[in-house]
This record gives sequence, structure tokens and C-alpha cells, in this order.
Amino acid sequence: MRIFNFSAGPAVLPEQVLHRAAEEMLDWHGSGMSVMEMSHRGKEFIGIADKAQADLRTLLAIPDNYKVLFLQGGAMAENALIPMNLLGKKTGADYINTGEWSKKSIKEAKKYCAVHVAASAEDKNFTYVPPQDSWKLNQDAAYVHVCTNETIGGVEYHWVPQTGEVPLVADMSSHILSRAVDVARYGVIYGGAQKNIGPAGLTLVIVRDDLLGQALPITPSAFNWKEQADNDSMLNTPPTYSIYIAGLVFEWLLAEGGIAAMEKKNIAKAALLYDYLDQTGFYSNPVAPGDRSRMNIPFKLKDESLNEAFLKGAQKNDMVQLKGHRAVGGMRASIYNAMPLEGVQALVAYMKEFERTNG
Amino acid sequence: MRIFNFSAGPAVLPEQVLHRAAEEMLDWHGSGMSVMEMSHRGKEFIGIADKAQADLRTLLAIPDNYKVLFLQGGAMAENALIPMNLLGKKTGADYINTGEWSKKSIKEAKKYCAVHVAASAEDKNFTYVPPQDSWKLNQDAAYVHVCTNETIGGVEYHWVPQTGEVPLVADMSSHILSRAVDVARYGVIYGGAQKNIGPAGLTLVIVRDDLLGQALPITPSAFNWKEQADNDSMLNTPPTYSIYIAGLVFEWLLAEGGIAAMEKKNIAKAALLYDYLDQTGFYSNPVAPGDRSRMNIPFKLKDESLNEAFLKGAQKNDMVQLKGHRAVGGMRASIYNAMPLEGVQALVAYMKEFERTNG
Repeated sequence: MRIFNFSAGPAVLPEQVLHRAAEEMLDWHGSGMSVMEMSHRGKEFIGIADKAQADLRTLLAIPDNYKVLFLQGGAMAENALIPMNLLGKKTGADYINTGEWSKKSIKEAKKYCAVHVAASAEDKNFTYVPPQDSWKLNQDAAYVHVCTNETIGGVEYHWVPQTGEVPLVADMSSHILSRAVDVARYGVIYGGAQKNIGPAGLTLVIVRDDLLGQALPITPSAFNWKEQADNDSMLNTPPTYSIYIAGLVFEWLLAEGGIAAMEKKNIAKAALLYDYLDQTGFYSNPVAPGDRSRMNIPFKLKDESLNEAFLKGAQKNDMVQLKGHRAVGGMRASIYNAMPLEGVQALVAYMKEFERTNG
Repeated sequence: MRIFNFSAGPAVLPEQVLHRAAEEMLDWHGSGMSVMEMSHRGKEFIGIADKAQADLRTLLAIPDNYKVLFLQGGAMAENALIPMNLLGKKTGADYINTGEWSKKSIKEAKKYCAVHVAASAEDKNFTYVPPQDSWKLNQDAAYVHVCTNETIGGVEYHWVPQTGEVPLVADMSSHILSRAVDVARYGVIYGGAQKNIGPAGLTLVIVRDDLLGQALPITPSAFNWKEQADNDSMLNTPPTYSIYIAGLVFEWLLAEGGIAAMEKKNIAKAALLYDYLDQTGFYSNPVAPGDRSRMNIPFKLKDESLNEAFLKGAQKNDMVQLKGHRAVGGMRASIYNAMPLEGVQALVAYMKEFERTNG
């Protein structure tokens, strides 16, 4: 029995990927070993890692002058490692504050540099993306940091910021691979894997190669992007099994038609839920329509005393992890690539039925 | 078909663990989810993590005043994070240099503090552990760092150093859980999981609680031991699937009779190989008999022109990953907990046959 899992991450994975992983667990392709048991320097695992990277490059059309790194520590670690790796001789960076994850990035960066918040959506409780013309960018900044999809607030950039000569750095943890992205517009794209890529414990960093080599002397070698890039992410032992699972996810995405096909499905899935939210007074979503996330859809019941009953009923209908993040409360449906349309249809049907019996 | 895998890490795992993982891949205990898909804040995963920690505490008899942290980044990351977390107001630390891994720790620590090498085995090419009475310890050191099993050189401490009031910090990556350890004699025990614990991508830190709270301001939150201890290693998303597999390994160890039973088997396995190495001139091991590792056994063929033939023949007999580390050359057999006695018997039989036909 499989359920519909709306967790914000770690999150639902494609069932085909899990079947492959189960089948290959004891003996990968006749090697007599599990992928978990393979030396990261053996030909079997190097083949797995190379194919994962090649497939990711195909999916996102990553230009040749970008390095792809498979690291550890998640986005929270990268929040510290980004200033460590990018500051060079600069002393400050610009941050755009669109919610909880932006705030975490800002807090962490302050340990290493002067943080200038160039725009903030705090005035409207983080329910929108501040438009580009309101940004007060600093030409001396080492970089401009954005979180292009706020997992908790459900706010997403549907446009690419212009930052001139200053590199744009984007935390795409919770919407990478869900939509087409012009990588060349970014200096660095990073994210934890545990939403659209694979298991928790793997961190993806895509970095333009001219930005390498500016790490502060305090940067740990294991997290020094230049040292890792020079060693194909194998300066130390990488999270091998997570890379393997990510590779299976990339194969699945290619088989499904790639990012363009996936984006079309994601637009349809999100529209189904937002359309219903907009036509009922029983539930509501606070985000400005043009800035709504396709991946993470927070909503509140008008009568919050019904929250527990809503969650219990959902569980009874095999839908789990709909409770909103403790920072904002209410509900949240995370509908990543691996969430089938049927899952969103089931959720909307349940929400309608719950409204009918409790409205 | 399963082979005998002598990889130094990632390394062989118990077959029973892999069977369980394969069976539970799509639906863990009727939850309708893979462990990989579970929110780290859901009751299912919290149960898995709590049981893993409890079983590890039982196995190693970890005292209550020690925190167990499940982190990311491997031992190489911890080499930086140890000074970051422990220096406090101190400016230096003592290191004992017993080989390649000690050298990595020393190199990394120099980014953060004055490193004093209190003893070194470099004079004899790292083939022994410098005896305690030769150590020049510094009473002002923030800690004394040792690598209690050198994975590359095959040197192991069979005794516990005395460091007085200064905390003893041990990298036990490649022999933790292979032998009884009196945790109370150490301030910090740490290691990458990919030898005796589980998959690569998980880092274990066992730290005495009075040593927490001395982190330098530059410590990333994701790697701040105090912050992680205060949040049960869930300040950020932990490597959930790796923790689950580690938990299955801990269950297997308990079912096998715990650490005492495992140590007995490990002594027998290592003796089988060392006894043969000591009675032939065809192969040799350079390490002082009293300091030999039970886990990692490097050896050389007297005639190194036979190396390729030796490895090819081993592969033909379903024994892989016997090539020594590039830093030292020759061969290496890593015989961790999950390597059955039959694997070592098969290796010795093959070595004898190879000697007979090539000697």
C-alpha cells in the first residue's frame, strides 16, 4: 500500500525509482555489491556518479563553464559556505528577504560578512516577491542572494532577477527540476536534495567556474568548492547512495519527457489546488497570485478549530504530512515532481468533502 | 551473487541489513512510505532515529553525560569542525601523528589554531603508534587529537592514551564498533559511517556534554555541536536514510551478540591473515606486531611486478577492492564487522595458491 505524502521534505519519490533501488539493493548490475558498499573510487561507482551528473546536465541544460558538485550538509550548511566560498576580498553581500529560508540564510551569512538586505517582503508578512525595481542593490556586493522558492511561505520567483556584474546566488532547494531554468543567468544555484532530487544528505551546488578560488582561509576543505571541483566532488567520501538515488530520479525525469514535460504537469497540479482555494471562503492562501509557489501550497481553514479534524480525516483517506510548518501554522501541501496528479485530485476532492460536511 | 568486498570504505554491509532495506523500500512497517520519503519531523522517522541512538548507546555503553550526534560531512569535515567546536578561548591543540589520516587532521586544524605535534611515527614511516611516554603533551592544549585506527597505514591503538585534564579526541572512523571502548576515557569520539556503521554521508560524533558550547563564532550552525545537540541532530534535515541503515546495522550487531562477540570474531579474522603474512616471505606487512590494525591490513608482494596478476586472480575468485591506497601502494584487505570469516579464509587460501604458483 502506498499513500499520498505531502511532506515538504524529505518527500515523495517516484515509485519506479524505489522499485529499482529495492531490486538492485543486494547486487547492482551483477557487481555482487550494493551501491552502498561500493568504494567511491571504484569503476562501478564512478560510472554511477558520472551518469548522474551527465543526466542532470542534460535536464537543466547546464553550460560547460559550470561545475556540478555533489556535497553534504544541506542548504543550511551552504548558507554558511556560500559567503566562505564567494567573499574573496569583498566584505559584504546583498540578500533579498522573502521569508523563513531567506532569514536563515541572512542569519548565517552575518557570521562572515556585512549583510545588506536589498529588499524585503516582511512588510506584507512575506506573501509576495519584492519587484526588481524596489531592490536597492550594492555594486560592491560579493553576490546577491535569493531564495527562489520559499518552502514554508509558498512564495516563488517566476522571473529571473537582474544583478548586472554581481553574481546571482539562488537557493533553489524546493523547486529545482520543477521548471525550466536558464542556468547562465545565475552565478550559483544550490539546494538540498530532499525535495525534487533524492534523499536527504545530498547537497547540489552548480557554480560558474570563474567564481571558484575565492574561498576564505577558514573554509573547511570538505566544503571548499574549488577543491571539490578539482576532485570531481570526491576530495572526501561523497554520499554515494544518495547520489545513486538522485541518478535514478534523473533517469526517471528524462523518461517522463524532461523538465518541460514536468513543468507542464506541475502547472496543472498547482492550478487544480489554487483554483479551488480561490473559489471557496472555507480555505485560503495568502500569497499574491503572481508569486505563488507551484511546489509548496500553504492554506488555512477559516475556522482553525477544525485543523485537527481536517488532518485526521486526511490521514484516514491515506493523505499525510499536510500540517503546515510550525512557523506559520495552518496546512501545507507540497506537490513535488513525484506527486502524481491523482494525489492532488484526491486532496481537492477530500477538501471539498470536508467543506461540505463542516462548512 | 554476492562477492567478498575488501573495500576500505564505503564497505561491505551485513547481508541481512540489505535484505531488510530492500523489503522495506516501498512501504516501511505499513506506513505507505519509504524511509527515504519520511519527514524527519514525523513520528515514524523520529522513532527510527531514537531507536538507532538507543541501540548505539547500548552497544558502546555510552554514559548519559555524552551526546550522540548524527551529522554530515565525514571525518574530513570534522577535522575542521573539531577545532571550531572545541577551541573556545584556547589557541592551540595537541596532535599525535600516526599516518595519512592524522596528517589530514593536522593540516585542517592549522586553519584554526596552533597545532602542536606531540608525537609522530614519521621516523619509521608510520608503522607504529608512538608510546605514551614519548608524547610531549602541552597542558594548555584545547584537546589532544588521535586517530585510533589509521585506515591507510593499518596501525591501531590497542590502549587508551592518558591526557589528564585535557580532553582526548579520537577519530575512530575505521574501527568504531569493532571492539569494546571505554567511552568515558574520551572527550570526543567521531567518525564517518562508511566502514562499520552504515552508508557514506553520515557522520557520528559522541561528545561529553561539558565540552559543548565552546564553538568559535565562525562555526556554521549546521555543524555546531551544541546547536545540534539541543535539537536532537535535527537543527537541519539529517541524512535520514543513512540513519535508518545505521539503525539496522546496530540491530544486527545486537543480534550477533554485541561488541564483545564482534571483537572476538574480529580478533580471529585478523589473526588468520597476520599469521599467514608472518610465516611467508612472499608477502609482508610492515606494522609493528603490537600496533597492527584488526580492520585494515596492508600487505605487499615481495615481487611487486606480480601486483596486477594478484588483483586479477582475486577478482576471478570473486574478491574485490584489494588494491592498496595510492599513498602507500601494495595491497590492503579491509575486514570490517560485516566481512564474514569465510571471506578471510577465502583470501588466505587464494594468497597461498598464488604463492604456490608464483613463488
